[in-house]
Amino acid sequence: MKEAVTVIKIGGNVLDDEKDLTTFLKLFRNIPGNKVLVHGGGKKATELSKKLGVEAQMIDGRRITDTDSLAVVTMVYGGLINKNLVARLQALDIDALGLTGADLNVIPAVKRVHPEIDFGFVGDFHIHEINDERIGWLLDNGVTPVFCALTHDGKGQLLNTNADTLAAGIATALSSRYEVSLYYCFEKSGVLLDLEKDVHIPELSYDAFQDLKEKKIIAAGMLPKLDNAFNALHGGVRRVVIGNVSNLPEFEGTKLIDP
Amino acid sequence: MKEAVTVIKIGGNVLDDEKDLTTFLKLFRNIPGNKVLVHGGGKKATELSKKLGVEAQMIDGRRITDTDSLAVVTMVYGGLINKNLVARLQALDIDALGLTGADLNVIPAVKRVHPEIDFGFVGDFHIHEINDERIGWLLDNGVTPVFCALTHDGKGQLLNTNADTLAAGIATALSSRYEVSLYYCFEKSGVLLDLEKDVHIPELSYDAFQDLKEKKIIAAGMLPKLDNAFNALHGGVRRVVIGNVSNLPEFEGTKLIDP
Repeated sequence: MKEAVTVIKIGGNVLDDEKDLTTFLKLFRNIPGNKVLVHGGGKKATELSKKLGVEAQMIDGRRITDTDSLAVVTMVYGGLINKNLVARLQALDIDALGLTGADLNVIPAVKRVHPEIDFGFVGDFHIHEINDERIGWLLDNGVTPVFCALTHDGKGQLLNTNADTLAAGIATALSSRYEVSLYYCFEKSGVLLDLEKDVHIPELSYDAFQDLKEKKIIAAGMLPKLDNAFNALHGGVRRVVIGNVSNLPEFEGTKLIDP
Repeated sequence: MKEAVTVIKIGGNVLDDEKDLTTFLKLFRNIPGNKVLVHGGGKKATELSKKLGVEAQMIDGRRITDTDSLAVVTMVYGGLINKNLVARLQALDIDALGLTGADLNVIPAVKRVHPEIDFGFVGDFHIHEINDERIGWLLDNGVTPVFCALTHDGKGQLLNTNADTLAAGIATALSSRYEVSLYYCFEKSGVLLDLEKDVHIPELSYDAFQDLKEKKIIAAGMLPKLDNAFNALHGGVRRVVIGNVSNLPEFEGTKLIDP
């Protein structure tokens, strides 16, 4: 039987709230066995951009990562957030190691190719190119990788990558050698049918997701997260749950099913 | 016979000059065997501090690391410089891994204790507490550690540490299991007797250093570097050289001797 690995993704909502973050880190420590943390950004990158006068570049409503924006995310995600998470996990006796996709060449990527829009320094990766052997080597030696959402093109260029996509990719790549659970932590208790009431769908099949998507019942912001989550489920991840940080011990939330 | 490890320290002068940095990275790649890179800061941290309105705090001419300054160095050293170096080394087929002392708990430190001055988030470490086993494990698995000069207190707090001291400490800690060479790269060709002429002392003994120090012949800025360098030599590092990046292939410069 394969060993278990738990991949947890946290975003800005957890990172920006000191109380939530402290709660999360303790719950994360208590998860038994191998684990991987993937973190997004949060307000700090926006705040730094504002202070530095780096304006978010948008084309057709899509965010562009120019040189200055890449420097900001490299400083905030790769430095400030990542290294503080590592130091705090070490204080909880978790042997954390902060990583970008460039470190140990774990996640090679390519600058996004798009027929009309130049997204700048945005990286897309292929799951089969993720170095699951190196990540597995770390896990097998008691190390807990802490990923920020930066990758690289193998030619010396760092690239900005979506943290939800990265978490799904890492979970999927690891599923060839481990029994992987993927838990997306966010501010709601799970996928909601009604944003006014915090009552989540306990189980969501891909067909039901498509149906809810067509009927525009699921909030637009949730769609990419769910696409990533279903990709992971279809790619071999054993369990995919979207839920609130406080429900982490039981992995409660919306469990994706693939009947 | 012990295996060889080369520890190289680079500072702002190399990091701030794109041409020098490109030269350095290629020379670094060509060093055979195990190697470790330790980097300092450079202008980027000063520039970011200025843009953010973070003023350097000084007490009695000594630099203080307050919360804002620590955030700046964590972003610039731990993020921007470290991760770009890693990406560029990966492009040269060096399996680089960016590290602070918090990652893998490789360099535990304590907040500096001083009878009169609170230096803020400045970390001092003991060489025997450096986790040379973990660093050795990385080296033995083909990994090239790239250290920025941040450590941690084991209670969740990152600390700012002098990069020259860190390089000496790592070199010394590794010397119990490896034959270590330590090379400090800087803008001069070595330790100069006359700053007007770039002619360096080929060999410098500890006694001669003390003599030159007393006579105030050696530039004040060089003294802490030389103290660190002699500590490394006395601590078991086989070869310690201070020289220019362009002389890296032959490790030319001022070689410290301990007759």
